[in-house]
Amino acid sequence: MTTDSDGVCTAEGVPAGDPGHPAQRTLCEADRALVARRQRALGAPCQLSYTPPLHPVSARGAWLFGAGGERYLDASDSVPVVGHCHPRVVEAISRQTATLSASLRYIGADILDYTERLLATLPDPLDRVIYTCSGSEAVDLALRMARMATGAEGIIVTENAYHGSTAATAAISPCIGGRMPLGVHVRTVPAPDRYRFFGTDVAQAFAAEVEAAIEDLRRYGMRVAAFVADSLFDSDGIFVSPAGFLRGAMDAVHRAGGLYIADEVQCGFGRAGSHFWAFQRHGIVPDIVVMGKPMGNGYPVAGLAARSVLLEDFCEDSHYFNSMAGGPVAAAAAGAVLDVLRDENLMANAEQTGASLKAGLNMLSEEFPSFGDVRGTGLYLGVELVRDRDSREPDSALASRVVTGMRERGVLVGLTGPFQNVLKIRPPLIFSEEHVGILLTTLSQTLECESGAS
Amino acid sequence: MTTDSDGVCTAEGVPAGDPGHPAQRTLCEADRALVARRQRALGAPCQLSYTPPLHPVSARGAWLFGAGGERYLDASDSVPVVGHCHPRVVEAISRQTATLSASLRYIGADILDYTERLLATLPDPLDRVIYTCSGSEAVDLALRMARMATGAEGIIVTENAYHGSTAATAAISPCIGGRMPLGVHVRTVPAPDRYRFFGTDVAQAFAAEVEAAIEDLRRYGMRVAAFVADSLFDSDGIFVSPAGFLRGAMDAVHRAGGLYIADEVQCGFGRAGSHFWAFQRHGIVPDIVVMGKPMGNGYPVAGLAARSVLLEDFCEDSHYFNSMAGGPVAAAAAGAVLDVLRDENLMANAEQTGASLKAGLNMLSEEFPSFGDVRGTGLYLGVELVRDRDSREPDSALASRVVTGMRERGVLVGLTGPFQNVLKIRPPLIFSEEHVGILLTTLSQTLECESGAS
Repeated sequence: MTTDSDGVCTAEGVPAGDPGHPAQRTLCEADRALVARRQRALGAPCQLSYTPPLHPVSARGAWLFGAGGERYLDASDSVPVVGHCHPRVVEAISRQTATLSASLRYIGADILDYTERLLATLPDPLDRVIYTCSGSEAVDLALRMARMATGAEGIIVTENAYHGSTAATAAISPCIGGRMPLGVHVRTVPAPDRYRFFGTDVAQAFAAEVEAAIEDLRRYGMRVAAFVADSLFDSDGIFVSPAGFLRGAMDAVHRAGGLYIADEVQCGFGRAGSHFWAFQRHGIVPDIVVMGKPMGNGYPVAGLAARSVLLEDFCEDSHYFNSMAGGPVAAAAAGAVLDVLRDENLMANAEQTGASLKAGLNMLSEEFPSFGDVRGTGLYLGVELVRDRDSREPDSALASRVVTGMRERGVLVGLTGPFQNVLKIRPPLIFSEEHVGILLTTLSQTLECESGAS
Repeated sequence: MTTDSDGVCTAEGVPAGDPGHPAQRTLCEADRALVARRQRALGAPCQLSYTPPLHPVSARGAWLFGAGGERYLDASDSVPVVGHCHPRVVEAISRQTATLSASLRYIGADILDYTERLLATLPDPLDRVIYTCSGSEAVDLALRMARMATGAEGIIVTENAYHGSTAATAAISPCIGGRMPLGVHVRTVPAPDRYRFFGTDVAQAFAAEVEAAIEDLRRYGMRVAAFVADSLFDSDGIFVSPAGFLRGAMDAVHRAGGLYIADEVQCGFGRAGSHFWAFQRHGIVPDIVVMGKPMGNGYPVAGLAARSVLLEDFCEDSHYFNSMAGGPVAAAAAGAVLDVLRDENLMANAEQTGASLKAGLNMLSEEFPSFGDVRGTGLYLGVELVRDRDSREPDSALASRVVTGMRERGVLVGLTGPFQNVLKIRPPLIFSEEHVGILLTTLSQTLECESGAS
């Protein structure tokens, strides 16, 4: 298997008469018309990814396919964790949708089977699950529970965190920026960035920042309700080392009477490779674990796990119900995802293939001085691009060009970090050595092309 | 077709050896075990409906089926608007799930086709749609937009309103009660209850209450951002008459610089019979229309429609994205619902069958003095049960017994209103005259049985 884009360095190399070629910079007329209709009907809220944007018409495994036969290796989307349109997930959703899709207001065995399997992946004393449709809803619910359980209001997050799109979760998501204000009850701490800020003593420095935030809340008459952290710090730039660095921060929050909420919406379900949940790398147990995106491999199902004692107050008084959440189709989809993860041994594959991919990225690092840092775990990897290895000045422009260049060559990766200079590589966990080869070759070609151009 | 429960008045009449009989009061051993597992795994957040709770294993059209062959006519659930497991919706979901379920970050024709069809059902100048997974997320988003567009904070809702389960929507949902506080920026007004509070001048009285709430916000230094109302006032007890009564309230809010948000999460998509959207009965145009439950007939898809001018500020600054919302499977499911509504002429059926059902309820009203009021529109009907027609004292206990009695006889209806004394009848829009007959016969039998018992 080879990429569709061998040797293609720029758009000039693309045959003008082949509108299906992935390297074509301009959209075909039909797609331009769709983009115009989109602007009229959806407005600006939902920006298209990639330049030019993609128009996939089908997908399978690690691949998206366009109408013109072009294909894209998807190393970007954290949702299709067992691969796009996995037949077992498709079959489970189809079968259950045809049979019953009633709400959780009725007795059903399937959601209980699933819940028990899900709880078995989590450490004690996490023993209860509440379902939602989206990760945003799950974080929102975790915040409500934390405030009720602690009687406190303060929330601590990292400086470029993203935790959701509801009013309450957007208010703790500094990453959004623009005119979306943080809540007055929110304090931010620098991300545990060993590369850029903390030197090597990440654990101590991060804990000290969290303690300072707790103290700052106190000065304003507030106590901390929760410290909320993406277990791999995706939007901050992906930070994973040294394993264990989260413990001091968690302990500080616990001493102050607050809860630790692990946001596993992007990183959960085996992607970290060594562990099913990314927080487990730190040898700690959160008070609440929030999960979403990969949970249904595209079917909208999300939720949280918590200690039963935390839920009691909330459950007695909140009359929480979500009519779309935790129904039999959600159970079927999410159950099939667990089946495939187990039967195809995908967590182990994430660890092995992820290690192989990381080793390849480290080799490219020797060749390309723009590689400031290669980091990550399992199949959740980041490559920080810099102008200069000494100054470590972020090279956001290069990162953007690399993403576009790889997209033109048929490989999709993302961007993250406050400077948008970190290549984000998050393929489905079925990613093979062959896929790794395609990705590395394409990245190398793109970087060579950029080196020649600069 | 006859009911399963002809002549069965009490549980004593149920054959003990027939565990599948719907009238059996106690759960079978297997179901008791499931309920115990549920308590251990899910905790209390999600209460089961009905006594004893149901354990459906499949569903089709207007019917839910239990494992023992028992069946229930579903006149309660607003989600399966075109009937449970409608083959065209099932086929659309299955086909698209097998083909592509990528996010709205990519170009796709299906969601645009759907959006244009959806906008065609809405009056000008509503010209933009944003998608979410649940009605709660959609209301939450509408609140964010309203605050950004008006620069104001105040929200006005009815006294027993329910608008969602996120932090922001729970804070405007007095119906939740318990320890869930309303926001300090929230003001409540009595529901437009012609039966109980307002006499016949509902429009004027309701507008005056909204004006008073605006004035009260002003006294606390706040301006009104939005008046949010379920277009049929479901949780307040279902209020529909006289058509037009919402105009004065909307005008008052507009004069004060606020927006009118129509919550159509439960009542939209043709259920009102005379109109596709229930607000249209009042001859008015909301600034934002929020929709959900029936939109995907069980597939989690929801959203809002708004005037483009309102979205501009929000879209520029909020970077809103919901990775589970508005994808190709949501478009397929929601599109199939519109197809079926059109091809099976279900809005007209809601009007005709609803009128027939309402006429039948009015006839029962002559026989049963506990019927204080019969009201509603299309297939969204309420029967308010009272101890005495003169005092109009709510008979919550009777209402609860009627729901249980009907469930025992194989017909599912709900309860609503601040006193939980209003029978809520919301069958799928495929409801036939035959179904109406079953429902009325069962209701009559249950009431006769109650009359004999009391």
